[in-house]
Amino acid sequence: MGNADYVCPSTNVERAHPVAVAVPPPQSFFKSLKASMKETFFPDDPLRQFKNQPPSRKLVLGLQYVFPILEWGPRYSLEFFKADVIAGITIASLAIPQGISYAKLANLPPILGLYSSFVPPLVYAMMGSSRDLAVGTVAVASLLTGSMLGNEVNANENPTLYLHLAFTATFFAGVFQASLGILRLGFIVDFLSHATIVGFMAGAATVVCLQQLKGILGLDHFTHGTDLVSVMRSVFSQTHKWRWESALLGCCFLFYLLLARFFSKKKPRLFWISAMAPLTSVILGSLLVYLTHAEKHGVQVIGQLTKGLNPPSVMNLAFGSPYLSTALKTGIVTGVIALAEGIAVGRSFAMFKNYHIDGNKEMIAFGTMNIIGSCTSCYLTTGPFSRSAVNFNAGCKTAVSNIVMALAVMITLLFLTPLFHYTPLVVLSSIIIAAMLGLIDYDAAIHLWHIDKFDFVVCMGAYIGVVFGSVEMGLVIAVGLSLLRVLLFVARPRTLVLGNIPNSTIYRSVDQYPDTNNVPGILILEIDAPIYFANSSYLRERISRWIDEEEDKLKSSVETSLQYVILDMGAVGNIDTSGISMLEEVKKITDRRGLKLVLANPGGEVMKKLNKSNFIDTIGQEWIYLTVGEAVAACNFMLHSCKPKSATTESQTWSDNV
Amino acid sequence: MGNADYVCPSTNVERAHPVAVAVPPPQSFFKSLKASMKETFFPDDPLRQFKNQPPSRKLVLGLQYVFPILEWGPRYSLEFFKADVIAGITIASLAIPQGISYAKLANLPPILGLYSSFVPPLVYAMMGSSRDLAVGTVAVASLLTGSMLGNEVNANENPTLYLHLAFTATFFAGVFQASLGILRLGFIVDFLSHATIVGFMAGAATVVCLQQLKGILGLDHFTHGTDLVSVMRSVFSQTHKWRWESALLGCCFLFYLLLARFFSKKKPRLFWISAMAPLTSVILGSLLVYLTHAEKHGVQVIGQLTKGLNPPSVMNLAFGSPYLSTALKTGIVTGVIALAEGIAVGRSFAMFKNYHIDGNKEMIAFGTMNIIGSCTSCYLTTGPFSRSAVNFNAGCKTAVSNIVMALAVMITLLFLTPLFHYTPLVVLSSIIIAAMLGLIDYDAAIHLWHIDKFDFVVCMGAYIGVVFGSVEMGLVIAVGLSLLRVLLFVARPRTLVLGNIPNSTIYRSVDQYPDTNNVPGILILEIDAPIYFANSSYLRERISRWIDEEEDKLKSSVETSLQYVILDMGAVGNIDTSGISMLEEVKKITDRRGLKLVLANPGGEVMKKLNKSNFIDTIGQEWIYLTVGEAVAACNFMLHSCKPKSATTESQTWSDNV
Repeated sequence: MGNADYVCPSTNVERAHPVAVAVPPPQSFFKSLKASMKETFFPDDPLRQFKNQPPSRKLVLGLQYVFPILEWGPRYSLEFFKADVIAGITIASLAIPQGISYAKLANLPPILGLYSSFVPPLVYAMMGSSRDLAVGTVAVASLLTGSMLGNEVNANENPTLYLHLAFTATFFAGVFQASLGILRLGFIVDFLSHATIVGFMAGAATVVCLQQLKGILGLDHFTHGTDLVSVMRSVFSQTHKWRWESALLGCCFLFYLLLARFFSKKKPRLFWISAMAPLTSVILGSLLVYLTHAEKHGVQVIGQLTKGLNPPSVMNLAFGSPYLSTALKTGIVTGVIALAEGIAVGRSFAMFKNYHIDGNKEMIAFGTMNIIGSCTSCYLTTGPFSRSAVNFNAGCKTAVSNIVMALAVMITLLFLTPLFHYTPLVVLSSIIIAAMLGLIDYDAAIHLWHIDKFDFVVCMGAYIGVVFGSVEMGLVIAVGLSLLRVLLFVARPRTLVLGNIPNSTIYRSVDQYPDTNNVPGILILEIDAPIYFANSSYLRERISRWIDEEEDKLKSSVETSLQYVILDMGAVGNIDTSGISMLEEVKKITDRRGLKLVLANPGGEVMKKLNKSNFIDTIGQEWIYLTVGEAVAACNFMLHSCKPKSATTESQTWSDNV
Repeated sequence: MGNADYVCPSTNVERAHPVAVAVPPPQSFFKSLKASMKETFFPDDPLRQFKNQPPSRKLVLGLQYVFPILEWGPRYSLEFFKADVIAGITIASLAIPQGISYAKLANLPPILGLYSSFVPPLVYAMMGSSRDLAVGTVAVASLLTGSMLGNEVNANENPTLYLHLAFTATFFAGVFQASLGILRLGFIVDFLSHATIVGFMAGAATVVCLQQLKGILGLDHFTHGTDLVSVMRSVFSQTHKWRWESALLGCCFLFYLLLARFFSKKKPRLFWISAMAPLTSVILGSLLVYLTHAEKHGVQVIGQLTKGLNPPSVMNLAFGSPYLSTALKTGIVTGVIALAEGIAVGRSFAMFKNYHIDGNKEMIAFGTMNIIGSCTSCYLTTGPFSRSAVNFNAGCKTAVSNIVMALAVMITLLFLTPLFHYTPLVVLSSIIIAAMLGLIDYDAAIHLWHIDKFDFVVCMGAYIGVVFGSVEMGLVIAVGLSLLRVLLFVARPRTLVLGNIPNSTIYRSVDQYPDTNNVPGILILEIDAPIYFANSSYLRERISRWIDEEEDKLKSSVETSLQYVILDMGAVGNIDTSGISMLEEVKKITDRRGLKLVLANPGGEVMKKLNKSNFIDTIGQEWIYLTVGEAVAACNFMLHSCKPKSATTESQTWSDNV
């Protein structure tokens, strides 16, 4: 097919083309670089309030930026204080047993759980911007620390080295968190999608529960593996060692804790029943053991806890250790997980109470808190959901509730540690299981299945990876699947055939709007993604297949043959050099088939690049239209004025636009 | 701000809303899964011609699909044969010296270069679908083989093991290539963008040229590193060992080769001067050495080459070797690189001659060719650009030119190998350098800089990584940067403020069209990318910042305050559950500020998900419009009928749509 039979003999034919598609005004390279850097790293424009301020005011603002307490502190009132004291004492009653339990989970001395609930909350109260976050250790990060460090160093055989590595990992986690915040790379955390977190958390909770079988059944030896298969093999290979005393006690306390939560859920006013339940369990359990001397009948107890506040641990950071890389890896992985949980928790409460949280600033606060923590015998802390929810329900007003909690823990450390001597481990296991069961969110998984199957696959991938593989493997699978999804979206964008919505000049996908009319002789395609190297080959193939299919379809009908291909570029956000080559090739393909290529509604970035690469001249400025409607009108005009004999059934659809 | 002051007391107010935004007809899960699988893996619908055919015809078509020679063979003519013989002899004259040179580059026996130009071209002629590709070894893959295997096994100390590992790597490369094709994963190769390849090739060419300093300067000892620093240190630490005889000879031949190429470029008719130059260099060099006995004066020669065809090497595949993982890694990396070059070359000539190449089918052909090659003493082959260009210029018609080349190489192997005894190594170095200089494509890099700065950064990253680090590092940097770009695009989509194009109902970006008018009281935002977990936090922040800025701007003016926020979803190709949560949060934010959220033109996928998650009910079906124009018209109608006292300066822009 030659070129002559479709080109009208004039290019300045009169057409309804009121506004030409504009190339955005040129910008200097550095200006556009600056703008895109700003969008990438400072999308929230954090320095906005500093503009046009005298230097002294800037200093005050700067200090308030780093230490938000300076901003809200002066406005603090007695009323707030009353609320914060109540909330602080409530979360302390939860923090003490949970702290001890989670430290056991990380194979660390139980006292570290109390240390970690003293210093970090004080640091966060100064630097954090959330009013509802309650700082403390979390089960998942504790488990991860235990399993990642435990792969290299046995905590029972070499407790000192293990402890030092845990401090070092916490230090690296803090440095990593703070650097993410300072370098404005907080968006890295966004790559852990909601679906990933749901699956990962549920998997981790399952794994943590499985680990508690050791405590519940009173076993001495247990597998180091965290996967379901290893744990089940370990449990059922030593059925003769199961202790019924321990199991009975565990089940009773678990029942009590779950009952307390059930009531609290029914009546949110009774939140304190659930919040106090762990502490009452600990008191009841300890009393029971003390009175019955059950520690001599197979019920393991915590034992001696040293009195006194956190000893310094700066000198214990093991930078010279051969296991430094393990500590670094553990720090980064646990740091990211802890950050993801802390930021998500802070954000959701802020959303609820209608204030704003700066993710990058929070990261700096978390990082500093962990760096200081690692120097004062604390291990990794963040803002756990369960504790923050209790804080919120208890009516906290500001971060002062964290200070109150820290003071309560301080008093415990100074005077009350001997009371925990007889606390049975099985109670701690029950507390952990009760907390973990709340993390398995079936509803969220079902919701994912209903709305987005791929999200569900990601979620299940993370769950199965964690439960049957390891915590790290689950995380890698989930992040890998999430990234794959993004890449697949870019590699396989959708191309949609558009049709005319009756009695309008609007063109929409024929799949979405089955009532649309086909325009004879014109194929209208919408490309639904940026055109990049990753999809340019695909798009070229797909566009030629659309043309093939359209020509096949028209061959058997009596309508006019295909003459024009209109590409709707409205959804093409950007294009790179491979994408431009693709367009050039499509232009060649259409030329060879005797078709005319028309572009509709290319955006600013696309026009800029098309202009620079001279593709605009190749295709002709007059073949680029502002809307699909205008493009169709112009094509129809050419079609009918050049070929007056062909069918003009569609004229009413375009005539009201011309 | 309460809700009462902007909601009109009726929801069924009369509006110009002719077509409701449709939710696409529901599809069963498996049907939609099948459709998306097909789009992902079979976008080119390769089995289309098999439809509605009798079984016998299907068998014939199937055989022709696997062996394209069965399809074009019967139509082969004498005229084609004449052209193919000329082209085949021309490429053979290039293949013989290049084959020997590249085998030296991979630290393999020179004869392997000849073997690799005999079997693989025959296999490709049967299975390949390109008519212009000339099969043979390539410099970059040879260098990579040499450096990756050389890291583990010294080719001089342990030549047999090294040779066997090279065969094994070739085998794995073949298996990997064929599997990519069979599993329809050819799009993985698309992730090597054009910019990556330009930078990587230029870097590899630079590195290969640097390696030739050994041959040119006649050095015995040379660094194993491929980076610029190691090579320069190695060269300048042994200045006393430089051999002027060798250097002089090398420079002369290099000058001759470059001159030949210069003439051929000036007059494409003289392509054969350039094509024959390597062979004439080899002949001249060998004669010179033979006559002057220069081999006794510091000019190194190839030496003895065994006569005879490829010995079998199936038994040499070292699957039990402790270096198996090295061979596997080498195979995969070199396989991908070779594939990327071969596919790109095949595609560009096919585009030029207007026939179609199926990438996945080509991968199967390349894979089979390398698997068979690895069993017949060949190492990795592909379709090198230089040789294919010569083939094309020599007027080849079909893959028969590859068969002719193979026969010429066979004759060489059987009878002519003794002639290469005196061929000086320095001539081979000159041939390599001359070929490599052609791969450094400054113009392409400058073009990238002009059109797309990020592509240029990717290109330079690959170049610098290869030249100063290693070949693998350059590849990792380039692929990493390319992926980062895709991820950054998804993580930081553009949000554009739209304005009204005068005298129309069209709304476009105010940055691209500076003449657009703002609509008072209405903020129109276009989101330019799918809404995914990776960008949902950013978009929420960015949208609230747009609202902040708009409210700040309106505060100082006398116009109506902000009342409506319209999100143009036309460019949002897809949304996941995190994206839906983001929209719900934006809805809460706008509600709290007393603003009304309106959606315009959501696509099919998006509507489906919004419907399933009940967000349509949350926002209200009546607040979702087909176009921005309709949404603005409706908002304006509400604005003016509910608040008749406010300014109505803009009424003419919407009245022509209502």
